[in-house]
Amino acid sequence: MKTIKGTRDFLPEEMILRQQVLEKMKSVFEIFGFQPIETPALENWEVLSAKGAGGPEILKETYNFEDFGGRRIGLRFDLTVPLARVIALNPNLNLPFKRYQIQNVWRYGDIAKDRFREFLQADIDIVGSDNMLADAEIIACVISVLTELGFKDFTVRLNNRKTLSALAKYAGVPEEKVIDTLRTIDKYDKIGEEGVKEQLLTKISGAATTKILEIIISKGNLALEELEKLVKDKQGIEELKQIISYLKLMKVEPKFEIDLSLARGLDYYTGPIFEVFAEEGIGSIAGGGRYDKMIGLFSGKDIPATGISFGIERIIEVMKEREMIKTKKSNIKVFVVAVNDKVRDKVLEIAQMLRNNSVSADFDLRLRSLSKQLDYINSLGIPNAIIVGEKELKNNSVKLRNMNTGEEKLLKIDDILKSF
Amino acid sequence: MKTIKGTRDFLPEEMILRQQVLEKMKSVFEIFGFQPIETPALENWEVLSAKGAGGPEILKETYNFEDFGGRRIGLRFDLTVPLARVIALNPNLNLPFKRYQIQNVWRYGDIAKDRFREFLQADIDIVGSDNMLADAEIIACVISVLTELGFKDFTVRLNNRKTLSALAKYAGVPEEKVIDTLRTIDKYDKIGEEGVKEQLLTKISGAATTKILEIIISKGNLALEELEKLVKDKQGIEELKQIISYLKLMKVEPKFEIDLSLARGLDYYTGPIFEVFAEEGIGSIAGGGRYDKMIGLFSGKDIPATGISFGIERIIEVMKEREMIKTKKSNIKVFVVAVNDKVRDKVLEIAQMLRNNSVSADFDLRLRSLSKQLDYINSLGIPNAIIVGEKELKNNSVKLRNMNTGEEKLLKIDDILKSF
Repeated sequence: MKTIKGTRDFLPEEMILRQQVLEKMKSVFEIFGFQPIETPALENWEVLSAKGAGGPEILKETYNFEDFGGRRIGLRFDLTVPLARVIALNPNLNLPFKRYQIQNVWRYGDIAKDRFREFLQADIDIVGSDNMLADAEIIACVISVLTELGFKDFTVRLNNRKTLSALAKYAGVPEEKVIDTLRTIDKYDKIGEEGVKEQLLTKISGAATTKILEIIISKGNLALEELEKLVKDKQGIEELKQIISYLKLMKVEPKFEIDLSLARGLDYYTGPIFEVFAEEGIGSIAGGGRYDKMIGLFSGKDIPATGISFGIERIIEVMKEREMIKTKKSNIKVFVVAVNDKVRDKVLEIAQMLRNNSVSADFDLRLRSLSKQLDYINSLGIPNAIIVGEKELKNNSVKLRNMNTGEEKLLKIDDILKSF
Repeated sequence: MKTIKGTRDFLPEEMILRQQVLEKMKSVFEIFGFQPIETPALENWEVLSAKGAGGPEILKETYNFEDFGGRRIGLRFDLTVPLARVIALNPNLNLPFKRYQIQNVWRYGDIAKDRFREFLQADIDIVGSDNMLADAEIIACVISVLTELGFKDFTVRLNNRKTLSALAKYAGVPEEKVIDTLRTIDKYDKIGEEGVKEQLLTKISGAATTKILEIIISKGNLALEELEKLVKDKQGIEELKQIISYLKLMKVEPKFEIDLSLARGLDYYTGPIFEVFAEEGIGSIAGGGRYDKMIGLFSGKDIPATGISFGIERIIEVMKEREMIKTKKSNIKVFVVAVNDKVRDKVLEIAQMLRNNSVSADFDLRLRSLSKQLDYINSLGIPNAIIVGEKELKNNSVKLRNMNTGEEKLLKIDDILKSF
């Protein structure tokens, strides 16, 4: 009678923490003008398996089955494919359409500390603008979200699929080997220069390998300028420069850098790509890019789009480990304690009075002794106790105890609300 | 490339509305001391199909399939079974455990206006108290939630499985026919006296049928007192009286009544049962009861529990139909308009200044004309526009337009924040 491997129960302490993180993210999304949408967990298999959507690697991990009517359906594996379907189904949406979506996705992949089979994703996307302002807006929002969550030393690495293609062309990589070459370049962070070199040599010529490595190992604007001199198609470079200038106008300068080794695995990217890395040892916490051709797969008409997906599970893991967020076992503000059975009626009344004034209040539901009630209060970390005793009640008073300091004061019942 | 029948996309207008409803519910749950939990969408089939859990009717509608490892798994069909599993897996939880849970459930059932195959439920439960205070607490919370949402003429109907058993015994219904008899009684609201009579006669004797109908057709406390004189086992009646007296102490008197025809379909109820009905024509919007034996199915040790489930989809439908809640297409407070391309940089700066001060602000991402931008603002119902023009900029000023009234005023850029 266990949970399925790779899935989790979230008990209150974990939930309260997750809710805090998500509330902060949502509030920044909304400040940037993104609006919420949700899509079903279940999608038709034709949607999930559409050519050019998630790709064969992801489909291998996608839960799918026949429903009772014999139709093949599956569980969504990301939030980008459902967005593309939503845009196709709603041709009258006002564009640009800026949406955020925070929902679970499912993938039957390997399990690790922060890798699960049912896990949360948060995506922001802008549909209907081919202007680099939209990409800059996405990056500015990501930086604001992470700053709001308390991250400090993170970096947004930027590249462009067009730049990568131009680089591959310059290096003499044959057309049919380009995607494969990009996938190998993308592993630079994981397997290093030697690893990339070794793998590239099994795919392309030694000369091409050398040319590519020469450029991608030097990072930052310097490499961008070098590249500009070398490659023919300069549009990708131009786009990156535009994004950077917009970000400067938006005053989010210091946290991004060009990384010519960044390729990102998914095939559907067509322009700028970005990935956010926290400090050493944490790695990627968000990634995305522009995908101007994907919505067209669903609607028959290309609509430009750009967006990013947050790795919420990893973000929450890091925030817990680094104590960037406080945990608590309950949101209850005050527990109304009955000293004995004779005062239980009054306890009910006081608790309801607090609740009617929007103060989160609880009381004993098991008719336990005073000390058992205090144990319960402490085990839930409730900060205040109102102790209702016969003696004090005669003066229409109760004791208010601060459970952290142990401090107590006598309080008229009519004055209780003033304390909360 | 459609959504699956019985599932829905929620676009921003619908999402903003749903979020408002759910936020209100959550806030009342927390004021009553309920803490959030979440459980996985995917559960092992042994959990979903445990004897005495959902029962065969629900299992017939439960999505299930073999995962990649050949294990039978399924999608949760309610939030009570997962709670029972959570309690069994976490024997060290502090009891009473008061939780709320708001998550989707899946059932392959008939589709109607407010019946879906993927739909939201919200449950509150109290685990670990056999005292009727816990049942009263559930009912008080439900009443507060519905009142907070703006419902007025709803009624909480109360009954007790023990009372129903006593009634069946008094009427001479054979032990093995009791569950069947209760299921028929439960249809009283749908099929009326004649319908119940007809169906009962196919199952039990004419004398038993008459005795049962005599009592259940008269509702309210009168029937309760009549019943007390007739039946031997008075514990159920005693419990109902206790709940009512607690509710009176909590000052939530007027909205509940005894309904001896209320039986509720699920087999796992063991004590008080309750169902909330809105005015004529809407029907049931929440239902639940005490289930002291169900957690034992998972943990091997009985732990008393009571709770209720909200029919959120119906509640939202009703709130929309009766205009109990305002819809809006976006949460954006202000759109910063560029009169022409020369001022776009300033637009970015102003928008970011607003955002840095937590004002939800947006601007044009497509470099459109002034009139196109105003159309967009109107189509999203954004209430304010800051219009940035060259002439005004020379005086470090902008125009602030109230999009509802059309009123405009000139504003120094440094004073913008004071208006929001």
